[in-house]
Amino acid sequence: MHALPSGYRFAAVASGIKKSNKLDMALIVSDTPAHCAGVFTRNRVIAAPLQVTRPRIADGLCQAILVNSGNANACTGATGIAVAEQTGALAASALGVEDHLVALASTGVIGVPLPLPPFERGMAQLVAGLSTDQAEAVARAMMTTDAFSKIASAAEQGDEPYALLGLAKGAGMIHPDMATMLCFVMTDARLDSSLLQKLLERAVADSFNAITVDGDTSTNDTVLLLANGAAGGAPITEGSDAAAVLEQHLKRILLDLAKMIVRDGEGATKMVHIRVTGANDVVAARTAARSVATSSLVKTAFFGEDANWGRIIAAVGYSGIELNQERIDISFDDVPIVAKGLAIGPDSEVRASTVLKKDSFTVTINLHMGNEEASYYTSDLNYEYIKINADYRT
Amino acid sequence: MHALPSGYRFAAVASGIKKSNKLDMALIVSDTPAHCAGVFTRNRVIAAPLQVTRPRIADGLCQAILVNSGNANACTGATGIAVAEQTGALAASALGVEDHLVALASTGVIGVPLPLPPFERGMAQLVAGLSTDQAEAVARAMMTTDAFSKIASAAEQGDEPYALLGLAKGAGMIHPDMATMLCFVMTDARLDSSLLQKLLERAVADSFNAITVDGDTSTNDTVLLLANGAAGGAPITEGSDAAAVLEQHLKRILLDLAKMIVRDGEGATKMVHIRVTGANDVVAARTAARSVATSSLVKTAFFGEDANWGRIIAAVGYSGIELNQERIDISFDDVPIVAKGLAIGPDSEVRASTVLKKDSFTVTINLHMGNEEASYYTSDLNYEYIKINADYRT
Repeated sequence: MHALPSGYRFAAVASGIKKSNKLDMALIVSDTPAHCAGVFTRNRVIAAPLQVTRPRIADGLCQAILVNSGNANACTGATGIAVAEQTGALAASALGVEDHLVALASTGVIGVPLPLPPFERGMAQLVAGLSTDQAEAVARAMMTTDAFSKIASAAEQGDEPYALLGLAKGAGMIHPDMATMLCFVMTDARLDSSLLQKLLERAVADSFNAITVDGDTSTNDTVLLLANGAAGGAPITEGSDAAAVLEQHLKRILLDLAKMIVRDGEGATKMVHIRVTGANDVVAARTAARSVATSSLVKTAFFGEDANWGRIIAAVGYSGIELNQERIDISFDDVPIVAKGLAIGPDSEVRASTVLKKDSFTVTINLHMGNEEASYYTSDLNYEYIKINADYRT
Repeated sequence: MHALPSGYRFAAVASGIKKSNKLDMALIVSDTPAHCAGVFTRNRVIAAPLQVTRPRIADGLCQAILVNSGNANACTGATGIAVAEQTGALAASALGVEDHLVALASTGVIGVPLPLPPFERGMAQLVAGLSTDQAEAVARAMMTTDAFSKIASAAEQGDEPYALLGLAKGAGMIHPDMATMLCFVMTDARLDSSLLQKLLERAVADSFNAITVDGDTSTNDTVLLLANGAAGGAPITEGSDAAAVLEQHLKRILLDLAKMIVRDGEGATKMVHIRVTGANDVVAARTAARSVATSSLVKTAFFGEDANWGRIIAAVGYSGIELNQERIDISFDDVPIVAKGLAIGPDSEVRASTVLKKDSFTVTINLHMGNEEASYYTSDLNYEYIKINADYRT
């Protein structure tokens, strides 16, 4: 059972955008305008809903999020932007709120015009269905190639209790800068949008920007964080203990959701934590971890359950960071396999191969250059990924 | 029939490094010390043979290349370097040349000690077998996961004729900075090592550093260019017409070999030329082309013969270059599919899908930002890649 923040209602419908007649349109509504923060794709090709929503979020307020799956409304030109604005206007009108308080998000195929009729037909039903208990349906309506819906929550039990609820979608194209990934987090805590923005950016850096499935990033990635204050507590201010507690809750929720996305990496059978330690600085650690986490050869070896540390050390080597190959140690969970750049021996490979049979494990690469570290979360690369993505549009 | 430069002999044997008893050791010998240039991997983890060979090449002379497949002699520490030097000494002694005139190259599995006995046993046979007509056997002895051997040649027919012969290996881990790729080019033209080095670096930039199969780069990549002057012509000097002619021959040979490597990309069924035009500068063009060429989603769509331009435009977008999405045109061979960032329409997709059924085609992405362009050559990503690489060591 998930903790639910007060003052939010949810609804989802099958509007017909997806030909499968599955849920494909959803609303999240706060009873009052909520303070809001957002993080968006760094792709230079940006979908219409983001072009509409980014300036709206800039004023720090949001009351409703309208999301659809089945069509990304990306690479659809001026018409796409006009359609996005019209969908937002339909929601605003039905809810009786101003247009600029409605955020928009879309996910699905690129380059196909987003049809307006499903929104015209579906909006009344959507608003009529708004309820505090429909968050799970919203998570399902966001899904595209996802195998399962993604929800995480936290409840702060202190003197001034509040809750956070996170809903996410994402499976393919997952990489730093948040590819085809949508995430909405709602809380009834009270804090302003500038603090929300800082907390959100830090939490995204260690979660959604530290996962990779295939290295691609999308045109539509959006993370929104809403705080409506409905829990009735005092305002949470920057630098306070309460802000630190909320940041921990937020980071945990986003990391949980990010790990679910890796685990749902199209066809993934493994979730692998790549941890680079002993780096000169965090940027070097992250660069090396990303290089290993995105290597097709490393990811294919994970699928083959092969403790192929040669590919790992090669991926560290071509990441371009400063290193001394004679200092590198590598272990799979607690099994050391490389010491000072050299194989420890056949026994160690045998023990490591039992680690690789697990669904989830950690590869630790100690560079012995300094004291900084960084983590990435990745999946294996296998036949199912090819199957899903070779056939996606056909 | 390949053109053969004068004054070179070749030999290959099955020494037993490969358990399959296939050819795995080879010698290329010039009758006299040849002027020499080399380009090596930019991976920070560098195999033993490169650590021995780079300083030897620095003096600009080389008389013999000893190459083995089946073992990369990488991540093998001080012992690996000592073994590499011993293999070179065996060849030098058998040939009656000084150690520093022998270049070494290895390819195969990483992290396993290279055994010396196969060299001790095989060297006499190797030297006894040296012949002007054994170049094809050398190309075969260099193969690891390669499906076919790779040879290209050129013959200059002018007043002062000469020939160039290139032998290469490479299939997996192919990416800029030349992953698990070996290439040796021999010519009987006469030119000094400093000019050779310049010509080689320019030719590599437009060939081996413009191909990608899976984005990984290896610890062992080596390109060597030898010129022994045995054709008897006058010295070719920098800036001369003769140097320009030789550069064209060299570029054509290296590009031919590079394309063979892409075509042999582990399990590849397609060879795709990614051409980015209308860029502000060559670096931006190359960055965008590389981003498209290395995208797993784009490469999987090629396998699915799906004209999925949305993934292409997304990959251009996340490459980070300056662009205006409303200016981008994309075509598959001569079929335009995107104009000013928007789909041209279903007819165009149908025509493009017939292009995608071909073994080889060109994707042109015009950014309309400037006048520079760059090319990358890539393959599709498919089940066979997973199969080969999940099972490689097992």
